[in-house]
Amino acid sequence: MEYTFSNGLRNLQPSAIREILKYAGVPGVVALSAGNPAPEAFPTEAIAEISARLLAERPIDVLQYGATEGYQPLRDHLKTYLREKYAVGNDNDEILITSGAQQVMELVAKTVCNAGDVVICESPSFIGSLNSFRSLGLKLVGVPVEADGMDVDALECALKENTNVRFIYTIPNFQNPAGVTMSMEKRRRVYELAKAYNVLIVEDNPYGDLRFAGEDVPAIKTLDDEGLVVYAGSFSKVLASGLRVGYALAGKPLLAKMIVAKQGEDVHTTQWAQMVCHEFMTKYDFEAHLDRLRAVYNEKAQLMMDLLDEHLVPTGITYHRPEGGLFIWCRLPDGVDMADFCTKAVKEHKVAVVPGSAFNVEGEHLQTFRVNYSTPTNEAMREGVKRLGAFAAEYFK
Amino acid sequence: MEYTFSNGLRNLQPSAIREILKYAGVPGVVALSAGNPAPEAFPTEAIAEISARLLAERPIDVLQYGATEGYQPLRDHLKTYLREKYAVGNDNDEILITSGAQQVMELVAKTVCNAGDVVICESPSFIGSLNSFRSLGLKLVGVPVEADGMDVDALECALKENTNVRFIYTIPNFQNPAGVTMSMEKRRRVYELAKAYNVLIVEDNPYGDLRFAGEDVPAIKTLDDEGLVVYAGSFSKVLASGLRVGYALAGKPLLAKMIVAKQGEDVHTTQWAQMVCHEFMTKYDFEAHLDRLRAVYNEKAQLMMDLLDEHLVPTGITYHRPEGGLFIWCRLPDGVDMADFCTKAVKEHKVAVVPGSAFNVEGEHLQTFRVNYSTPTNEAMREGVKRLGAFAAEYFK
Repeated sequence: MEYTFSNGLRNLQPSAIREILKYAGVPGVVALSAGNPAPEAFPTEAIAEISARLLAERPIDVLQYGATEGYQPLRDHLKTYLREKYAVGNDNDEILITSGAQQVMELVAKTVCNAGDVVICESPSFIGSLNSFRSLGLKLVGVPVEADGMDVDALECALKENTNVRFIYTIPNFQNPAGVTMSMEKRRRVYELAKAYNVLIVEDNPYGDLRFAGEDVPAIKTLDDEGLVVYAGSFSKVLASGLRVGYALAGKPLLAKMIVAKQGEDVHTTQWAQMVCHEFMTKYDFEAHLDRLRAVYNEKAQLMMDLLDEHLVPTGITYHRPEGGLFIWCRLPDGVDMADFCTKAVKEHKVAVVPGSAFNVEGEHLQTFRVNYSTPTNEAMREGVKRLGAFAAEYFK
Repeated sequence: MEYTFSNGLRNLQPSAIREILKYAGVPGVVALSAGNPAPEAFPTEAIAEISARLLAERPIDVLQYGATEGYQPLRDHLKTYLREKYAVGNDNDEILITSGAQQVMELVAKTVCNAGDVVICESPSFIGSLNSFRSLGLKLVGVPVEADGMDVDALECALKENTNVRFIYTIPNFQNPAGVTMSMEKRRRVYELAKAYNVLIVEDNPYGDLRFAGEDVPAIKTLDDEGLVVYAGSFSKVLASGLRVGYALAGKPLLAKMIVAKQGEDVHTTQWAQMVCHEFMTKYDFEAHLDRLRAVYNEKAQLMMDLLDEHLVPTGITYHRPEGGLFIWCRLPDGVDMADFCTKAVKEHKVAVVPGSAFNVEGEHLQTFRVNYSTPTNEAMREGVKRLGAFAAEYFK
């Protein structure tokens, strides 16, 4: 049979990151291309203890169907936690537990958009979300990312020029891939623009707890008294990514429709994973765990920046110094063929980085690549950046 | 903010089953309305043992991101298992692990359909799948279910009358809710019609292993040498529903696009749950476990049928005797107001069944309701059917 595909999927290819991850698995290749949390960041013993206890004491709760909206104690706890710690959420909001934060993006898009509707995205942005929107046949309009976040004038133009914009998608903290954090001033402006143009904001905040320098900037959701903002959080970076647990905090009528959409996707998120998250947040010292994570990532980020300064900056490559998160965004000198550089780096010099084009919204950012410091060991970072520097010095000649 | 919803979600309400489940949770109500596996069917000790071992020996594999296509050992094992045990799948097919079989339906629909395209469904059918298709803005066309499965003449008419049919959705074994099994003759005919009209078949088989009477009928997928059939399997009924692990077996090019779609939904299925399924299938006696399940459900089904014969049949209610699965489909005498009967049953007589209209494709089947024998205890079944019979005798007078 000759298969024909939907408009959304027809032209969609597997994530370039995941394709490069295949090269990254070749023996001898140093992968600076991943986006996995550091293995040492997983509280493995605590999770083993929690799991053993749950399966001994409440096996049927773990193994039976659960509610689509999520494990109620986890929903309740998150609601209080977000409100008390971050002033995020009010009485008009509710929590939906999702199968990773990725599902929040897909559910919002499915719930409020028809094929052909427009989503305004930062460009570059997280490819997983972009492809999620694309898979539903949505049109993406990119707004450039500056050192203090989204270019808000370009955002206003995009809102003016496009009639059927449904929401603005942003990762305000330690953006993936650009590593930048949106200023409070810009957050206010984005909120005001969304209000003026009657569009939603999807605020994706997987990295917010991983700040190792500078001061926290309040979430856009803290400004939200109109139910404009869908806030997406995740356990992937602060507990364990393989659990696939995330959550949405959103206005109740919107969340109610997202629950119906989720019912048709996976009925509910794995009970065990939800219960592990709840037990870890409530029976362990979650704040101490976050402190430990920040120390781990601070050390790794500083090492990576030192290595970039030593090996790449002298070749003419520049980069943005992140204050948290997992990624550093590097810029090649003008005139360098980025795709050729990244391909030769992995194939000939056995060091994998992610080509900036993977994060494109509409075909821009061709002088950039992303490196990651959370997954590789310190030794691998040293070797990888050294290889990349030596290759760059030779290649740019 | 006044929310506006997509065409697919706008008119979609939460599953009536799940709404009735709320009543079913009221103290004193006997719930014959659920669809949960019997708690005694879960191999809780084995899962606890597996989980402890995995978290002690391979914690990072459990907790780190995995591949979108699924945990490779589970994919490999399922491929061999399906082929050797059921002659299902060939060299052109591949396996995708999903977050429950529900996700298979959603991914196929998203991958091959645009909003407005037609899906032909058995009517009645599983509301979760119907709503999944509806959430994507698809048009559902219903084909009646007979005692030996889908009415194939009506199917042919539906294929003739609708131009943009993309697939036929069927649950051939112990259909939910009708409890019927499609004959081999009809399976061949459905396959030939799909081939003639160049549409896919989505064969949803969550209950196939739960046969306690009669002879197995080969899957439609066994006939498939053209890549027409997407076969969906699940661990929900044979291991544990809260794990949320299912799988699709489909032609490679189609599966490749479904993987891209899944990447944008939840990245991958919870690692722990996939690994538990794999360990249980390979390190334990899975066939002995299935035998045990069949014995459990056989006993419960026989009891339920005896109770129906004793308390409901004398009132004029009829039902289809299933040979497996979890459900029995009952028909009220002509002239009885089904919705009123089901509502009064739960509100006044404290016994919950699912109104047949919940499984409607287009508004038919208004004289029916579904009962379940897997979730309630034997004692609850005795009490529930007795109450229902007493109420029916009085109500039909």
